[in-house]
Amino acid sequence: MEGIYRFVLTDVEHALWTESWTVDESTLPLGTGHTWRVQKTALKGGLQDGVDLIEIDNGALSVFVVPTRGMGIWKGLYRGIPLGWESPVRDLVNPAFVDLNDRGGLGWLKGFNEWIVRCGLDSNGAPGSDVVIDNNGNEAEVFVPLHGKIANLPARHVEVQIDLSPPHRITVLGIVDETMMFGPALRLTTALSTTLGSNSLTIADQVTNLNDKPAELQLLYHCNYGAPILEAGASLVAPFKTVSPRDPHAQRDIETCDQFCGPTPGYVEQVYFFELTGKRGGQTAVLLKNADGSMGSSLHFSRKQMPYFTLWKNTASLRDGYVTGLEPATNYPNPKRFERDAGRVISLNGGETHHCDLAIAVHDTKRDVQNIERKIAQMQKNAAPKVSKKILSRLSSVG
Amino acid sequence: MEGIYRFVLTDVEHALWTESWTVDESTLPLGTGHTWRVQKTALKGGLQDGVDLIEIDNGALSVFVVPTRGMGIWKGLYRGIPLGWESPVRDLVNPAFVDLNDRGGLGWLKGFNEWIVRCGLDSNGAPGSDVVIDNNGNEAEVFVPLHGKIANLPARHVEVQIDLSPPHRITVLGIVDETMMFGPALRLTTALSTTLGSNSLTIADQVTNLNDKPAELQLLYHCNYGAPILEAGASLVAPFKTVSPRDPHAQRDIETCDQFCGPTPGYVEQVYFFELTGKRGGQTAVLLKNADGSMGSSLHFSRKQMPYFTLWKNTASLRDGYVTGLEPATNYPNPKRFERDAGRVISLNGGETHHCDLAIAVHDTKRDVQNIERKIAQMQKNAAPKVSKKILSRLSSVG
Amino acid sequence: MEGIYRFVLTDVEHALWTESWTVDESTLPLGTGHTWRVQKTALKGGLQDGVDLIEIDNGALSVFVVPTRGMGIWKGLYRGIPLGWESPVRDLVNPAFVDLNDRGGLGWLKGFNEWIVRCGLDSNGAPGSDVVIDNNGNEAEVFVPLHGKIANLPARHVEVQIDLSPPHRITVLGIVDETMMFGPALRLTTALSTTLGSNSLTIADQVTNLNDKPAELQLLYHCNYGAPILEAGASLVAPFKTVSPRDPHAQRDIETCDQFCGPTPGYVEQVYFFELTGKRGGQTAVLLKNADGSMGSSLHFSRKQMPYFTLWKNTASLRDGYVTGLEPATNYPNPKRFERDAGRVISLNGGETHHCDLAIAVHDTKRDVQNIERKIAQMQKNAAPKVSKKILSRLSSVG
Repeated sequence: MEGIYRFVLTDVEHALWTESWTVDESTLPLGTGHTWRVQKTALKGGLQDGVDLIEIDNGALSVFVVPTRGMGIWKGLYRGIPLGWESPVRDLVNPAFVDLNDRGGLGWLKGFNEWIVRCGLDSNGAPGSDVVIDNNGNEAEVFVPLHGKIANLPARHVEVQIDLSPPHRITVLGIVDETMMFGPALRLTTALSTTLGSNSLTIADQVTNLNDKPAELQLLYHCNYGAPILEAGASLVAPFKTVSPRDPHAQRDIETCDQFCGPTPGYVEQVYFFELTGKRGGQTAVLLKNADGSMGSSLHFSRKQMPYFTLWKNTASLRDGYVTGLEPATNYPNPKRFERDAGRVISLNGGETHHCDLAIAVHDTKRDVQNIERKIAQMQKNAAPKVSKKILSRLSSVG
Repeated sequence: MEGIYRFVLTDVEHALWTESWTVDESTLPLGTGHTWRVQKTALKGGLQDGVDLIEIDNGALSVFVVPTRGMGIWKGLYRGIPLGWESPVRDLVNPAFVDLNDRGGLGWLKGFNEWIVRCGLDSNGAPGSDVVIDNNGNEAEVFVPLHGKIANLPARHVEVQIDLSPPHRITVLGIVDETMMFGPALRLTTALSTTLGSNSLTIADQVTNLNDKPAELQLLYHCNYGAPILEAGASLVAPFKTVSPRDPHAQRDIETCDQFCGPTPGYVEQVYFFELTGKRGGQTAVLLKNADGSMGSSLHFSRKQMPYFTLWKNTASLRDGYVTGLEPATNYPNPKRFERDAGRVISLNGGETHHCDLAIAVHDTKRDVQNIERKIAQMQKNAAPKVSKKILSRLSSVG
Repeated sequence: MEGIYRFVLTDVEHALWTESWTVDESTLPLGTGHTWRVQKTALKGGLQDGVDLIEIDNGALSVFVVPTRGMGIWKGLYRGIPLGWESPVRDLVNPAFVDLNDRGGLGWLKGFNEWIVRCGLDSNGAPGSDVVIDNNGNEAEVFVPLHGKIANLPARHVEVQIDLSPPHRITVLGIVDETMMFGPALRLTTALSTTLGSNSLTIADQVTNLNDKPAELQLLYHCNYGAPILEAGASLVAPFKTVSPRDPHAQRDIETCDQFCGPTPGYVEQVYFFELTGKRGGQTAVLLKNADGSMGSSLHFSRKQMPYFTLWKNTASLRDGYVTGLEPATNYPNPKRFERDAGRVISLNGGETHHCDLAIAVHDTKRDVQNIERKIAQMQKNAAPKVSKKILSRLSSVG
């Protein structure tokens, strides 16, 4: 067979929306032997009311994509290894119930439970005040809440594509608009894809400035892991030039910043800012592995697209949220004004597009884990790792 | 017959939700002679869009429970006596349309029209700033809006149970989560029940701290009555040790604080704080009765669970909201910081649960009203009632 | 035939709502030869999820009314002439996703893309702080966000009426409540109507103070036009006594304030405040016409109902929002406190109703355009037009 099987689930321009839908081997025989499936459901009741959910199961790796929450990825499962974490927020929260400006701009945390969630697009860091040009052409001070809006905006277009030729790539396309009159008008066009039987998925994102006037862009991928990959003795493997602490509390333990504790009641988050090294072309990778190196998950991306990497360590007790965040980004998640002053905020001209590609792989054997570690060690040869004790943020921030 | 008939209406963990459903004598014959019914509907259109509503009619008393609004009780009707009040807010408002932080933190008032509505769980009083520990372990000042969030959170689990044995208790169970990452994670588990033909209902609530770290709890039952029980000459009967005014305006009329006016254009609310007495075991009761004592409604609860009782008098004109609130609670509805300083905020350890039980009865004969008055008079013998003119709040607050 | 054909689409008091519905010549033969239609749909997916939409097509003019967004008019089309504009906000946004208090009170702009949208009812101007009387009878400072709430409130009653007698008026009735406890309780009752084959529509609005206590009212009709009527060389024709600039930036170009540029990258809005003249009875009209006078749209209203007219010029680039707003109103869209001090805020007694009637016509021939120009020229004879350079607002405001 050749060509692409295509099904549009949501298209607001044509008033098209599908409540529930499934495709699998029984309805689209690919003859690969993989038990694959793509299933779309619409949740009802509770904070989940009105949330669209898409499960993509490639036969080995399954992930839940959430169009209603900016095309984030709620959870995953790879050959019995759960991907994601257990948040005190149990349910998938419809953005209609989220007030980002609540609680001093920390309202985002009332919907936060995803494995992979984007922070952005106009801002992606800690809350703070910022100065923008208003409709009158004057400077105006505005408050910017935590982690931006993109995770709390529903997609206006959602489409499933299945490549009929081997290796049978399954793709979920999504378009999410973060727009307003007299302000940023940014469009995220994302293609999440995986091939049948594969241990990885790829996120290919484009952010386009829909306006003619320039716009700023901040984008961060908050990739969060709890048990079982995260455990006492788990560690981060990352090829880096420098690592710096966010604050004195992180500074204290920077020498062991790549090592993780088990669930620790009363643990206060520690955040580290990395400048990574990698291959000469810019490609790099980081790995989170469990204590005995028998399982792990790695992120693969380009330092040209995302030059900054943040590690959020929050090994609190299981019930308080035992989790670490691996966060490739266009900048560090400090307040936007701080990042702009540091020259780390991207500016897009009218109509301009910024690309971010992120591949996430899951490793379930020691050999696989060692293999990716070797690649990272090879990358590390391109730079001498430097541990800096200099604090990189004046202000408190949420990792 | 024995056992429990059970029907799950909402269960977000299993993606289960029922749009409309009815059970009554025709589908579940109990053979009691009562014309009872439990009916679930899903409202559409206007501010009500997406609101789930459950009517429980025990044959004499019917109440409307609102899972979408924190399992509050919208209205009731007992043998022709309407229970509740007429608010300028006509419709049941989906929390998605409520911005609690609007209008200086008074957004809660844009959805306020229930007979019985909980205020809580992290806070339950007047708006004000508070200091919390943030994700960085630092103190952070946050703004706390009026009456907390629980009334604007949809239930994640709703279940109807009917006891097949006499006296045939009908129970609606609900679970509502008020959670966030890096903040309070409190779960309300409520069982509202009534028996066939009865004049009363019981609310059995448990609030559990889902986190390992300690959490604060504030819970208040805002039980609101307008006409016909509230009228010129209606009165509150309560066994008390002390009553104190909230502010100078209330102070002025404290001697007649148990007496109600008819609808009074321009009336400004008066709020009184009671420390009640009761039976030796802690059980107490308060009664609102009409002018000639031919009808009334009484609340029954434990001073151990809810040591503080507030009376909100708002006998404004009918169209502005003619209403009084009888409010048993864990504290007074002052700004949280004030209540904490006064030692009236409950702290729950990780996993700990606080119970609150509240029974509400409706009385439609003079004999019934006199009966409950006698019981309260008996309770009053355990303490000498003291009217204090000392103002109990530094700050303005909403009753 | 005689009488009125009537269909209720939404009635929250009777739990009545219709998902989709159509009436046209095939189901209700009127025998006029016009291909007319009224169609109700419910949008799903994206930011539009849950938005009700009604298309009224009189055979020549079609308009889309949005019950979920305060009965505003999204778009129109008259014999091939699109009415409205292209906003960076592409989709019809459910108010559940709009936080009016976001971004310094500019959240309204995240849903702004209508042809005709009401600003009001308690406030209709630029954001700013205001002082209100709170529940305690005390003055309290509150923040008032941009353009008020009415455009982000869903209608509680929606009804279609079709006059069975010529000229067959099609009417869509809507009732929208902007209410709260202890605050304004204002009800908008609107009747939007058009006759078969006509080039115009009429909006007959009543705003009623549902409370007994007095309430303030601000109402503005933000009527927005982009291409093709707006183009380089397009102009406003208005009979006026005075025109004043909002700020120094508008002051600079006041002599040509009636002339429009083509799409101009970097254009900063200019806002002009008009006191109009008109017929002796109070009736007046304004016209926007294209460069060669071959097409235009005119507004017809009473200066008794709406004494103030604002022109918002925002001839930015096409992608940034090329648009002008013609805004008849009860006041100018300055911060409410400023307008109150200037004596331009209406006060309604308890139960009192204010009427606003607005007719909008579309002209697609030079003869029609000239005809309305002649009428306006006739009106201008009742006053000498005065161009004032005095700035009418201390504060910045959004047009």
